[in-house]
Amino acid sequence: MLFYASITVRVPSDANPERIEQLKVQEASRAGELEREGKWLHVWRVVGRWANVSIFDVKSHEELHEILTSLPLYPYMDIEVTPLCEMHPTTASAGRT
Amino acid sequence: MLFYASITVRVPSDANPERIEQLKVQEASRAGELEREGKWLHVWRVVGRWANVSIFDVKSHEELHEILTSLPLYPYMDIEVTPLCEMHPTTASAGRT
Amino acid sequence: MLFYASITVRVPSDANPERIEQLKVQEASRAGELEREGKWLHVWRVVGRWANVSIFDVKSHEELHEILTSLPLYPYMDIEVTPLCEMHPTTASAGRT
Amino acid sequence: MLFYASITVRVPSDANPERIEQLKVQEASRAGELEREGKWLHVWRVVGRWANVSIFDVKSHEELHEILTSLPLYPYMDIEVTPLCEMHPTTASAGRT
Amino acid sequence: MLFYASITVRVPSDANPERIEQLKVQEASRAGELEREGKWLHVWRVVGRWANVSIFDVKSHEELHEILTSLPLYPYMDIEVTPLCEMHPTTASAGRT
Amino acid sequence: MLFYASITVRVPSDANPERIEQLKVQEASRAGELEREGKWLHVWRVVGRWANVSIFDVKSHEELHEILTSLPLYPYMDIEVTPLCEMHPTTASAGRT
Amino acid sequence: MLFYASITVRVPSDANPERIEQLKVQEASRAGELEREGKWLHVWRVVGRWANVSIFDVKSHEELHEILTSLPLYPYMDIEVTPLCEMHPTTASAGRT
Amino acid sequence: MLFYASITVRVPSDANPERIEQLKVQEASRAGELEREGKWLHVWRVVGRWANVSIFDVKSHEELHEILTSLPLYPYMDIEVTPLCEMHPTTASAGRT
Amino acid sequence: MLFYASITVRVPSDANPERIEQLKVQEASRAGELEREGKWLHVWRVVGRWANVSIFDVKSHEELHEILTSLPLYPYMDIEVTPLCEMHPTTASAGRT
Amino acid sequence: MLFYASITVRVPSDANPERIEQLKVQEASRAGELEREGKWLHVWRVVGRWANVSIFDVKSHEELHEILTSLPLYPYMDIEVTPLCEMHPTTASAGRT
Repeated sequence: MLFYASITVRVPSDANPERIEQLKVQEASRAGELEREGKWLHVWRVVGRWANVSIFDVKSHEELHEILTSLPLYPYMDIEVTPLCEMHPTTASAGRT
Repeated sequence: MLFYASITVRVPSDANPERIEQLKVQEASRAGELEREGKWLHVWRVVGRWANVSIFDVKSHEELHEILTSLPLYPYMDIEVTPLCEMHPTTASAGRT
Repeated sequence: MLFYASITVRVPSDANPERIEQLKVQEASRAGELEREGKWLHVWRVVGRWANVSIFDVKSHEELHEILTSLPLYPYMDIEVTPLCEMHPTTASAGRT
Repeated sequence: MLFYASITVRVPSDANPERIEQLKVQEASRAGELEREGKWLHVWRVVGRWANVSIFDVKSHEELHEILTSLPLYPYMDIEVTPLCEMHPTTASAGRT
Repeated sequence: MLFYASITVRVPSDANPERIEQLKVQEASRAGELEREGKWLHVWRVVGRWANVSIFDVKSHEELHEILTSLPLYPYMDIEVTPLCEMHPTTASAGRT
Repeated sequence: MLFYASITVRVPSDANPERIEQLKVQEASRAGELEREGKWLHVWRVVGRWANVSIFDVKSHEELHEILTSLPLYPYMDIEVTPLCEMHPTTASAGRT
Repeated sequence: MLFYASITVRVPSDANPERIEQLKVQEASRAGELEREGKWLHVWRVVGRWANVSIFDVKSHEELHEILTSLPLYPYMDIEVTPLCEMHPTTASAGRT
Repeated sequence: MLFYASITVRVPSDANPERIEQLKVQEASRAGELEREGKWLHVWRVVGRWANVSIFDVKSHEELHEILTSLPLYPYMDIEVTPLCEMHPTTASAGRT
Repeated sequence: MLFYASITVRVPSDANPERIEQLKVQEASRAGELEREGKWLHVWRVVGRWANVSIFDVKSHEELHEILTSLPLYPYMDIEVTPLCEMHPTTASAGRT
Repeated sequence: MLFYASITVRVPSDANPERIEQLKVQEASRAGELEREGKWLHVWRVVGRWANVSIFDVKSHEELHEILTSLPLYPYMDIEVTPLCEMHPTTASAGRT
């Protein structure tokens, strides 16, 4: 089950910089795990922003919610989730059929 | 060079339905070509909308513009392009370093 | 698998009124079917608008896309889909745990 | 009398985490009460956000305002209320008749 | 049960002007009826726009939906409904108590 | 001279709660005064929000500005003012004549 | 009594160009009248748009509504009216006192 | 060279009230100077907001930037600048010719 | 005097395609003229949209308005103009000094 | 490879003013470097705002991300990047061919 997630990180100006650095290390490690498990299928960084374009492949909405809320930087993330379907070349853009 | 494109198709109510069906067939064929050439790297349909989430891998801005404006349904598409960077597991979310 | 769908119907001013009446009858019949099958779990009308608040319970994103795009009034619908999780009383609002 | 409420929780970055945990426990308990009384008819969590989609069934606007403002996390909630009507299968989407 | 309705009228450019004049006469007559019945409690015109600020006093959501959708100009109206509570002088602005 | 004012109160998270309670008492007293003087013609609370829908009847823009800026909670209010005209039943919605 | 009006003209693509030219001549003539009467105190064109920034000085909301709705191009205008107060040099920006 | 500036003042909740009072006095004095020099051609207060509608008449973009950034309250101002042209009565609204 | 203009072209679906092709040829020729005269200093196409990012260098607001409204495709353009100042390397981003 | 970047600087009210002055000096120096290297092709200040309109010419998305995130004021910048193509006079506005 595929999902697009647009993830933006906004750290408040009064956050402790060392704590944020620590969370970033933990985030990278957790993200690596999820990528190896095939859950976080793709992640691309948005140029010029602390934000990414992500594709998740999970078994249920509960699993996706658990994954997202377990991310070390989750408290600073603004996440928008969009459910996706596979599209094969021969039906590309044929969204209404 | 990777790009995220959010593509929404809006056909005006006075369009000729047969013409649109024809364009959809042509669109599917052109999309298939671009996927086989490795230019249209990924495309997922947005559930409940005539819209998709796309990733393009091209050599230049000119090439991407040419590809998008050559799509048979381009005159009815609203396209937003976002430049992306690769992110490797060990640096996931590390957008500021 | 639960989804919230916010559905707004916008009929263009040049549409044939008889055709729209016909589609509304077909829509009501198709909606009844989907409710009896347990797919369209809930639907409430928004006061003062041709719009509704819907909850769907389906097996996959593909099934939901097929259901929505098969609705007789789909060509005039603006649909936004949000994936949901069940919440039990003892964990209400506990979105971050 | 049915209402849709879109509820998003935003806790300021300088809030005391223990106080928030305490409010979440109180919120869950209060929500459970309101669900058992049949006031908070449905509540679903939005995937990836501290937010929910809720349906309330109350006797008056005053009762709904009292319920919402009495929620332990109310000071951190952004709430939008939309009045709803029942829709029966045979009239689904027939919003204009 | 009180409701605020923000009502904006948008007539498409291809509408028949005589038909619109006719609907305006019917609208004025229907509005007069609803005001005399005490349902359309207040209505003020917004300066410089074909729009009004309205207060309705009805027994149910169903009644309000029926009233609004029965207005002769309803097909051209964009309506947003907000549920209201009475506020007495001694508690003015005391929205959180 | 009639005005619609949409008033939303947003108290910053670091405000002193006792000070806010005190301002609310003062606000209620000042609002009562203005209602008795016939200046604050109507005020209704928006369900689920610290916000209200207000109608003011004043002699000049200067008087309205003075009234609004003199409200004890004014520093925390977001106010949008819209000038209104009376509408009589026989001309309801006849905004263009 | 002073008002700021932001006026944007949007002529639909199917309008008769000769009719529009005629309305523009009538508009210029009516605007000249209102300027000479001291009602349309100021009007400046927005660079690159068919839009203007206007200041009106009228006796009542009814008068302003009548003036605006009597403009020959009114059916194509999108107007937003904001009530203003005079500010004298010594109190400039002193909006809260 | 004429410019419309929409200026809104937003003072953060943790600002020192005495410092703000001091800046308001300085602002009024500086605004008076600029009005006497004919640079700040008009300024009107927006009813119910700490905001104004301003017209500036300056020789260059550099001069306007210097004027705006030199205002004592500038650090708290949100400013939007729109370039304007003179419109004479006989060409009012004739934006396209 | 420098201006940034964001220009988007939206051709209505019922426009005559031959007429549009003709206007595009005229537009290219007029744009070339303005570039050679040093008025249209820069123009870059936005990837995937019929839109451009432009920099104009003109003597007055009147001149810029005349240039923009004289463009063959002007009736289909949505233009937003922003006044700019030169920035030299040693003062880059120093917007507040 | 050309990019338009709209850069707005927002410094939180609790930032240390001396630290910000220091960052501005560093920013000017770094910007100068990037301009001399031909990477930061153009930069214009937006009148009345701490914001600029920039054109970058870089070899890859990775290079642009590195440049932007290395700016001393980056933590306070809101950046939106848009990919651009060259347009030659003879094809100006010919975005669809």
